[in-house]
Amino acid sequence: MKVEIIAIGDELTSGRILNTTSSFAARQLFEAGYEIYAMHTIGDTPALIGEALKKAISQVDAVIVTGGLGSTDDDLTNEAVSMALNRPTLPNLEILSTVRAHLDEITSTPVGKLEKLAWLPEGAEALSPKSRMAGYQLIHDEKPIFFLPGIPSQMKQLLNEHVLPRLATWHKDHYLTTYQRVFKIFNLPEAEVNRRISTLDLSRAALIGYYPVFPEVHLSLIIRDKQNRSAEKLFKSSCKAINTVLGDAIYGYDRDCMESIAGSLLQRAGWHLAVAESCSGGLISQKLTNIPGSSAYFLGGVVSYANDLKIKFLDVPEDLLRDKGAVSREVAEAMAAGIRGRTGADIGLAVTGVAGPTGGTPEKPVGTVYIGIATSEGNWATRFQFSGDRQQIREMTAQTGLDLIRKYLLQMAGR
Amino acid sequence: MKVEIIAIGDELTSGRILNTTSSFAARQLFEAGYEIYAMHTIGDTPALIGEALKKAISQVDAVIVTGGLGSTDDDLTNEAVSMALNRPTLPNLEILSTVRAHLDEITSTPVGKLEKLAWLPEGAEALSPKSRMAGYQLIHDEKPIFFLPGIPSQMKQLLNEHVLPRLATWHKDHYLTTYQRVFKIFNLPEAEVNRRISTLDLSRAALIGYYPVFPEVHLSLIIRDKQNRSAEKLFKSSCKAINTVLGDAIYGYDRDCMESIAGSLLQRAGWHLAVAESCSGGLISQKLTNIPGSSAYFLGGVVSYANDLKIKFLDVPEDLLRDKGAVSREVAEAMAAGIRGRTGADIGLAVTGVAGPTGGTPEKPVGTVYIGIATSEGNWATRFQFSGDRQQIREMTAQTGLDLIRKYLLQMAGR
Repeated sequence: MKVEIIAIGDELTSGRILNTTSSFAARQLFEAGYEIYAMHTIGDTPALIGEALKKAISQVDAVIVTGGLGSTDDDLTNEAVSMALNRPTLPNLEILSTVRAHLDEITSTPVGKLEKLAWLPEGAEALSPKSRMAGYQLIHDEKPIFFLPGIPSQMKQLLNEHVLPRLATWHKDHYLTTYQRVFKIFNLPEAEVNRRISTLDLSRAALIGYYPVFPEVHLSLIIRDKQNRSAEKLFKSSCKAINTVLGDAIYGYDRDCMESIAGSLLQRAGWHLAVAESCSGGLISQKLTNIPGSSAYFLGGVVSYANDLKIKFLDVPEDLLRDKGAVSREVAEAMAAGIRGRTGADIGLAVTGVAGPTGGTPEKPVGTVYIGIATSEGNWATRFQFSGDRQQIREMTAQTGLDLIRKYLLQMAGR
Repeated sequence: MKVEIIAIGDELTSGRILNTTSSFAARQLFEAGYEIYAMHTIGDTPALIGEALKKAISQVDAVIVTGGLGSTDDDLTNEAVSMALNRPTLPNLEILSTVRAHLDEITSTPVGKLEKLAWLPEGAEALSPKSRMAGYQLIHDEKPIFFLPGIPSQMKQLLNEHVLPRLATWHKDHYLTTYQRVFKIFNLPEAEVNRRISTLDLSRAALIGYYPVFPEVHLSLIIRDKQNRSAEKLFKSSCKAINTVLGDAIYGYDRDCMESIAGSLLQRAGWHLAVAESCSGGLISQKLTNIPGSSAYFLGGVVSYANDLKIKFLDVPEDLLRDKGAVSREVAEAMAAGIRGRTGADIGLAVTGVAGPTGGTPEKPVGTVYIGIATSEGNWATRFQFSGDRQQIREMTAQTGLDLIRKYLLQMAGR
């Protein structure tokens, strides 16, 4: 079953807002077994919206349209649909009463504007009329078309709770058995991943894709077959072969991220981590605490941006800072030991480096980063030379720090 | 001059990778005065790529295509272009010699694969043949078509350094005078922004757009005119009117972000900031240090995720934590005072709250956040109730904390 996704909004075609909703929709639909034929982004121009919609209806089995459903003056999707598909807009009484009940609460907003939310093209079936989220389904030329708000949180909720269940009732036999796995790879260049995979004798039915997603490489394996059993067998043998040639450069799969993997290894070991960050400025802590439940293994840390804080909070000796410089192996080690000692963590991670754009020297150019680790077995630090802009150097620093934690814990578990 | 942008890659249509390059290209082109007619995303399927390319050439003045130019087996753009436009692929000798020189360095990669980068459709002019970035221009039906790699950093560099200068030499008279300003608004709902703007008697030539960009609202003003003088006059009067009705809910303009505004106010005041973060877990520090030069006003801080760290690093009294709880007005105040006192900062910012998804109670449900500020004038804290998921609550917490710093410094400067 083929699907097209159309995103509407001048804020998207002017590049001011990054379109995240189309990508979210594509992912959910793809994983549910649908084929995404194309994704389009067009401005708030009724003629173009109508043209794109009609073309999509003519060439695919279902269409998802996002954006332009709101109550402000630049929301023109309903008008465009009405014109393109010859469906006059009519008030939806259920939505009208929801809007009016809300208006009683906030009387400062003029009634005329918000009531716009209730005027839908003829035949529209509201997806969630009792909520204050716009969104409806139209059946046109016997094909389902879904209109969703452009606000990411609302769009995602309606897609998962209403669109996917409704779509599943259309053409129940639409899809082949699909097996997919994404191998998340860090610290191995794409060309080298490609070279290793090309040494394997994978079946032609195994679709392989390579995607550099800074700072990682993602390798996608997809197997589609009408016959479930043969697809499963092929999937398992392909995964095994890929794991063999890529080894521990694969840090995880599918929706894993480096911080979730490091976190679950810490939790399994019953260890607590504390972090001292200089050039990464809180990025490592922020990533770790983004994972719900991270308080089970993450104590916290210090962002020792100023040298003074390295002395006050991390017990880095003042003469060490003076003699070796803040960006040095010795200071990275001392920071790791300091945060571990002060917090009572089992493992301390510390980073210090030159994120740029200024601050580089011939001996320590922009991108020079020292990462230190402290455990009961001792303290050590490694020098890295990263390239790219400030954001990229910070990202590589955080990712590499978390990867060192991962590798240390894997080694420990293996003993 | 109308432009279409076509992004190619199965990783995009499966939603696994967010398409950031199209948005970047749209923004650069829009700001340079071009009109983005449409943006399309399609998979690595030569027939679809060819069809989209031919359609774009027929309806706009220039086309930008990104992705599928690499050396791995799933890169099919050149093949598709060759077929669709009847241009056989030929080796580009300059690129071939760049690739071969590189191969001498890393002999482990098989020659055949990387040499693929040098085989381009007939008539292709490489944009940067001496670099290792793929990318070329084709003139077809007297229209320029640019092919760029999908890797964001390379695509951005080639777009800015090669595509925009080349495009500017086509149809020099293509664009009207364009004035644009984006008003960045925090802490005022979109409907209220709309209501206030609708009280203004703005010219019909002033195009207004409303965009909720969590956690902000962006208001876009665009004025396009053939006559420079009248456009400028209209632009200035419209900006003034908008500033009057929205007041200090406008925190900045265009590419400003909350952390850059807070940073420049701190710098102007000659003040140093230190931050104590609990529920935001490093997000505030990370945002602040993302700005180059932030060490001029940001000392660093403590991520006091565990209660123990609030005592050890921030001098929060143990009995206060026990009696009032970690999420309380008193602890937020003590944290702010603690980080200020320990670091010697002029202003201390502290946050403590329940980011969820678990940990809420009837008195302090998920989303309850206390934000504390400490200066030489005293310490105080405010309770906020945020809604949304964990990421949204953290984002609102960080943004609100920075906004409080901004408002404090604005008030101080106004005295």
